[in-house]
Amino acid sequence: MTRIKRLLVCVLLIMIGFVAGYSRPRARRIGMVIGIRPEKLEEYKSLHADSNRGVRDLLRRYHLTNFSIYSHQLDDGGKYLFGYYEYYGTQYEVDMSRLAAEPRNKDWLSVTDPMQVPLRNEKSWAVMEEVYHND
Amino acid sequence: MTRIKRLLVCVLLIMIGFVAGYSRPRARRIGMVIGIRPEKLEEYKSLHADSNRGVRDLLRRYHLTNFSIYSHQLDDGGKYLFGYYEYYGTQYEVDMSRLAAEPRNKDWLSVTDPMQVPLRNEKSWAVMEEVYHND
Repeated sequence: MTRIKRLLVCVLLIMIGFVAGYSRPRARRIGMVIGIRPEKLEEYKSLHADSNRGVRDLLRRYHLTNFSIYSHQLDDGGKYLFGYYEYYGTQYEVDMSRLAAEPRNKDWLSVTDPMQVPLRNEKSWAVMEEVYHND
Repeated sequence: MTRIKRLLVCVLLIMIGFVAGYSRPRARRIGMVIGIRPEKLEEYKSLHADSNRGVRDLLRRYHLTNFSIYSHQLDDGGKYLFGYYEYYGTQYEVDMSRLAAEPRNKDWLSVTDPMQVPLRNEKSWAVMEEVYHND
């Protein structure tokens, strides 16, 4: 092969890899909601700061990625948390029960759960219905 | 180069591309909330069904991607929508005003806006505060 052909092949191979990486399937998206005790919001935010390791590594280990939590006060005066994450694994229930069994995750929830106020008839975050998605 | 070396170089180049594609930066994430008239929820869901083109192409054109909307009824009895999207462009305000100026987007909002109930002191979706993110 000439040098120019070799270069073109290299570029093509990198592009194939890029497209494969870029367009990875999103196995499952979860949106969820829960209340937060207003007097605990600042402490909750500190616990969730970028600088705090928390359970970030455990979420990744069990394939929960692109995980965001937002807070907002609604018109009833209550403060709420809205969570969003993507699951890229292949065994959702297995991964979730393994995560739940991790001692560090249990410790984490023993701190954060009492700050949260589940909606009526819920024990923790309520999973919402997805009504729209556009990649 | 021997055949095996050439193969290894090919695999390496594809891997470089894959990692570059997979780890693309997320320029900006937006989480937002708004009420929805309960009697309009089903119509809203139909409009937002996968099969409906809506403004999907316009969102992508102006770099708004991975756009999801969830719905849930909260304890005040009201139904709410929670939106999440990622912006991958470099001129957020410019792209947003160009999107707003698109005739088809105006038509779309003239249908969906009356179905929604902005929170107090809001004209449309309220942007929420991000309190956590983990890639």
